[in-house]
Amino acid sequence: MLLSSSASIVIAFLMGIAGVGFVVWQLQRVMAYDQGNDVMREIGKAIQDGASAFLAREYRVIAIFVAIVATIITIFLQWQTAFSFIAGAIASAGAGYLGMYVAVRSNTRTAAAASRGLHEGLRVAFGSGAIMGMSVVSFSLIGMSLLYFFFNSDPNYLSYITGFGFGASSIALFARVGGGIYTKAADVGADLVGKVEKGIPEDDPRNPAVIADNVGDNVGDVAGMGADLFESYSGSIIAAATLGAALGKANTAAFIGLPFLIAAVGVVSSLFGIYMVIGKERDESDVARAIANNSLLTKTIYFLNQYVAKVNENASLEDLLTALRRSVWGASVVILGLSLFAVLLSGMHFNYWLAIVVGLIAGNAIAYATEYFTAYTEKPTLAIAKATQTGAATTIIQGFAVGMMSTALPVLITAFAILLSIWLGFKADGSLAAGLYAVALAGVGMLSTLGVTLATDAYGPVADNAGGIAEMSKLPKEVRHRTDALDSLGNTTAATGKGFAIGSAALTALGLIAAYVSAAKIGNLDLLGPTMLPGLLIGAMMPYLFSALTMMAVGKAAHEIVLEVRRQFHEIPGLMDGTGKPDYKACVGISTESALKEMIIPGTLAVVAPIIVGHVLGKEALAGLLVGTLISGFLLAVMMANSGGAWDNAKKFIETGEYGGKGSEPHKAAVVGDTVGDPFKDTSGPALNILIKLMTIVSLVFAGSFGTGWLHF
Amino acid sequence: MLLSSSASIVIAFLMGIAGVGFVVWQLQRVMAYDQGNDVMREIGKAIQDGASAFLAREYRVIAIFVAIVATIITIFLQWQTAFSFIAGAIASAGAGYLGMYVAVRSNTRTAAAASRGLHEGLRVAFGSGAIMGMSVVSFSLIGMSLLYFFFNSDPNYLSYITGFGFGASSIALFARVGGGIYTKAADVGADLVGKVEKGIPEDDPRNPAVIADNVGDNVGDVAGMGADLFESYSGSIIAAATLGAALGKANTAAFIGLPFLIAAVGVVSSLFGIYMVIGKERDESDVARAIANNSLLTKTIYFLNQYVAKVNENASLEDLLTALRRSVWGASVVILGLSLFAVLLSGMHFNYWLAIVVGLIAGNAIAYATEYFTAYTEKPTLAIAKATQTGAATTIIQGFAVGMMSTALPVLITAFAILLSIWLGFKADGSLAAGLYAVALAGVGMLSTLGVTLATDAYGPVADNAGGIAEMSKLPKEVRHRTDALDSLGNTTAATGKGFAIGSAALTALGLIAAYVSAAKIGNLDLLGPTMLPGLLIGAMMPYLFSALTMMAVGKAAHEIVLEVRRQFHEIPGLMDGTGKPDYKACVGISTESALKEMIIPGTLAVVAPIIVGHVLGKEALAGLLVGTLISGFLLAVMMANSGGAWDNAKKFIETGEYGGKGSEPHKAAVVGDTVGDPFKDTSGPALNILIKLMTIVSLVFAGSFGTGWLHF
Repeated sequence: MLLSSSASIVIAFLMGIAGVGFVVWQLQRVMAYDQGNDVMREIGKAIQDGASAFLAREYRVIAIFVAIVATIITIFLQWQTAFSFIAGAIASAGAGYLGMYVAVRSNTRTAAAASRGLHEGLRVAFGSGAIMGMSVVSFSLIGMSLLYFFFNSDPNYLSYITGFGFGASSIALFARVGGGIYTKAADVGADLVGKVEKGIPEDDPRNPAVIADNVGDNVGDVAGMGADLFESYSGSIIAAATLGAALGKANTAAFIGLPFLIAAVGVVSSLFGIYMVIGKERDESDVARAIANNSLLTKTIYFLNQYVAKVNENASLEDLLTALRRSVWGASVVILGLSLFAVLLSGMHFNYWLAIVVGLIAGNAIAYATEYFTAYTEKPTLAIAKATQTGAATTIIQGFAVGMMSTALPVLITAFAILLSIWLGFKADGSLAAGLYAVALAGVGMLSTLGVTLATDAYGPVADNAGGIAEMSKLPKEVRHRTDALDSLGNTTAATGKGFAIGSAALTALGLIAAYVSAAKIGNLDLLGPTMLPGLLIGAMMPYLFSALTMMAVGKAAHEIVLEVRRQFHEIPGLMDGTGKPDYKACVGISTESALKEMIIPGTLAVVAPIIVGHVLGKEALAGLLVGTLISGFLLAVMMANSGGAWDNAKKFIETGEYGGKGSEPHKAAVVGDTVGDPFKDTSGPALNILIKLMTIVSLVFAGSFGTGWLHF
Repeated sequence: MLLSSSASIVIAFLMGIAGVGFVVWQLQRVMAYDQGNDVMREIGKAIQDGASAFLAREYRVIAIFVAIVATIITIFLQWQTAFSFIAGAIASAGAGYLGMYVAVRSNTRTAAAASRGLHEGLRVAFGSGAIMGMSVVSFSLIGMSLLYFFFNSDPNYLSYITGFGFGASSIALFARVGGGIYTKAADVGADLVGKVEKGIPEDDPRNPAVIADNVGDNVGDVAGMGADLFESYSGSIIAAATLGAALGKANTAAFIGLPFLIAAVGVVSSLFGIYMVIGKERDESDVARAIANNSLLTKTIYFLNQYVAKVNENASLEDLLTALRRSVWGASVVILGLSLFAVLLSGMHFNYWLAIVVGLIAGNAIAYATEYFTAYTEKPTLAIAKATQTGAATTIIQGFAVGMMSTALPVLITAFAILLSIWLGFKADGSLAAGLYAVALAGVGMLSTLGVTLATDAYGPVADNAGGIAEMSKLPKEVRHRTDALDSLGNTTAATGKGFAIGSAALTALGLIAAYVSAAKIGNLDLLGPTMLPGLLIGAMMPYLFSALTMMAVGKAAHEIVLEVRRQFHEIPGLMDGTGKPDYKACVGISTESALKEMIIPGTLAVVAPIIVGHVLGKEALAGLLVGTLISGFLLAVMMANSGGAWDNAKKFIETGEYGGKGSEPHKAAVVGDTVGDPFKDTSGPALNILIKLMTIVSLVFAGSFGTGWLHF
């Protein structure tokens, strides 16, 4: 039986709606939790206000940017692409807004829920993450399927839909790059004056930058990560559909429909995975009750309950990790079955299902490799901790070496996944183009369970904030113990989430590059072609330049915060003894302004460089540029994310009391490592995901406008 | 008029002999200088013994390695390649031996000569560097031209001569990678116990590792740099000749002969440049005397004297730099004229001369860009110095950002040089192959004045040692002031030398890759081909893995030195108060052993990886691997070398009294930066040059043995 592409996309649309249904239901559930005492409410309110202020300011800038770019697209390409561009920007911004909205309201609720038990806290925080995860997935599917129905009578409809990806990328640029600068500027600024100059602890409400710091956690790891993966998710589907259409097979509709269908069944799998954490804890009698019950819904819920994680009060970090892993793996098992069904239903070759499996396994393998290199239970991070004994220099050298070493596994996994997918596609349909389609499908497979994997990431900052709120509002010791446990879990998922984000960005970008080459009608792409090597070299340099710019931007933005915090301590009477009230909003405002200002140069670079190279050196050189940026950026991003994560955890390891514990000389060296690692892992590293994808999608959107360049061979 | 390739190679041979003549003459001149007082002689003797011990031990290991590889080549390829391989190894090792021999004997002589004046000291140290520079150039030319005459009746003679490059690469692997580990292990080991634990100053004769440290300077920057550039020099000529032969033009002989001819006239230019530093200082009456004199030689010398640099006693760093720059630029001007003559004499297209000019300019431009990013008179390094005020972490972040930013110019220069050369070649002979030949010629052009550029590099460690010897033997203040000035000059030339070494390695490797693609008979090298992207990704990962391994190797080797130094302070009575005598040899022995041991894994990786990928994934994937390693390694090497150089100079800037000067908190932060930068700029960074070229030459030598790989598409 053969599904038409329209049928697949109808299913994708319906699943998107189902996802929105879940989001609404879950939103009510989370908001129904109580917000704790007055102090907690007050702190929560300040964070909410800060987040709103940031979003309002950011969205104003974005609106201008989107208007300008949409005008350019309308003039140089066509209004349909501009329309899709705006739709993509709105969908991504909407998902980001919702995710942030819930995240900054779940932190107090998580702290309050933790008073009642560990699993209660986990449920609220993870439930908040699930809203972000499912919003991203659903908004992307709804947006793209609506555009499909809107444009599908036009033969160029797929090229219009690439505009959706470009719109999503633009939001990701602001959310991830601007957000990355924001979060670290606020963090470093708060620490430099608060901890170093004034000697007050972290998360102290007297520090005028403390709210900006808390807002920053959400800005970076909720809105930033969400927009990053929204872009990957949409991009991977667009790439696969575009490559599928270019194959020109008799059943083109099935080739186009399959990525949508996989994404659609991925929604079901994600919901299953999410339920395994937020559902009612399993009970021995559930199965019996499921059998006995007459209502199908209730029957299903009782049936599912048997898979829900059980988290008891004394759960170790390992137990908590297992609970989250169960949900991700559970979703993976479900998607394996459902996607096989989807592939067969589309009448496609079995090998395409294998390619999806390859992508799923590769994503999990990269996340696992990341965990190995950044967890303080493993050798690499322990070696950094050991190096702290001989000072800051050896700590940095060792961390750097670990970061570089950690690139080997993700690269080998990705290379192997690409090789295998190409081979599977080639064997299925006898062409290299089918092989590249299979690579794009592997990307879709890797991201198919994004609803739940993103939930585990977006959970982190909520737990982190909850810990800060518990601290600031002086909740009882056992509650803080629980929020600490939830926070540690968040740190681990943050590291693996970064590995997954990079891996999926690489695979998505590769699919988009292949789509670009096809769309630009490049016949021969000789590696030693006249403009190829210059293109590759300049491309490989872009991530270095971009990282340097973003890293320096953090320094400049942090400096402005420092000046403001110093000013407040100097000018506001009684601030230090707690009688004066700090002006949190001023710091939030400065972080926002300077983050947005500092991202102009790197952001412009990412958009303009491919257009210049495409016109001056020609479309072949541009392909080289994209591949150069992809491979160099992938390696640099992994290196920076992992060394940053490893330094962070080496410090945490010492804080458990090893090598003299907090305050010792090794600890001071570890703090230097952690501080160096902060912009590595939270600003420059993640920003490279955006660079890689944004440059590619810009090239794909403008593919038709590039010629042979100025030099003639 | 058309020169036959044999005639060109006869000229190259004769110029090689002329270079040897210069080396012998200069050797006598340098050795005739007095060695100073007894203390100086004693220290000098210890360094000489240490260097001999290192070389003896290293060459024993190399002999075994060469024997094994030569056997493998004989079995799997043919004896002729093995013969050339041995010849290349002997020629490179011979040049390295001679350079080291003179360097460790010129240090005391430089210190003694500095007692008589600044220019006298400069003359001895630079004269020593010139011996290294001219040995490298001459031995390479003599070796390759002899092989040419030996094999030239066989149609495969050029493929045999590639063995020479492989032999040179093998020596470079040991000299650069092993040497890089040695020098930093001894340095860090000496500092950790001496400066940190015992509180004795640097270069203190009581420190058992002080001689190993001094030997290390020569091992790294004389033997290592020499072998690195010997490889580039030979490789660039081999690549150009191979590509020229593959063009299959009517005047193939001219295409093959031209790179040899350019190298030959480069000898003359280099000698001119060298004379401008070591010759008699210019005198207003020189021109008149030149006209009046009857002997041609004396006439020439009087004529040349007018160009010799004048260095007065109060010369600033800028003046000294100008003296060296004059010599390099003077040589460049001469080569411009002579190479135009060579191109026309060979009956080749004018564009090929332009390609040579492009290479020359690019080399100088990269060196200049490097100087900008690493000199403490310029903004980037000053920004690092400023960042030391807020501690070690911001120092590291800023230095890292500067290193990343500094990749932009070298990449743009290289990309532009490649693009322009390809275009020139394409316009001259209408094919992409001619374009790649022109790129290889640009590489030959960049390296044509190597005799003098290498002299400015190899000068550095001699001046550095001379400073140490002046310090240890308590020479008068004005002498130490002069050796300090010479040392500062050496630090600057070391940084620019590294930039030049990386740039030339990249261009050489690119030529060799093109030669490999031609030799492996690869028809279509599609950038999106089935195995290309996995190849590119794995290739891009190699430099990261290689850097991680070499950086960790320094840590391990330094640890062994630390244990030995501690043992000696503990077991040798009276060592601390100067009555006991340290066992320098033990430390030299341990540095040597552990450096050679620690380089086994990275060294094997570089040789084995291309062979495995070539067989398993096929020859196309191998081309991808090489290009991936080239672009990723080039960027990483520039970043590491420049951030290391900038940290070093930021520290030196603070030591001039800025930001509190020596001993202040900013100085401590700067020391952390400098220590992190040490393995960056002296071990891992330079080792990447070797990785890039060695992988390529291995692939070129074994090009005929690779097929389509195990997966079938």
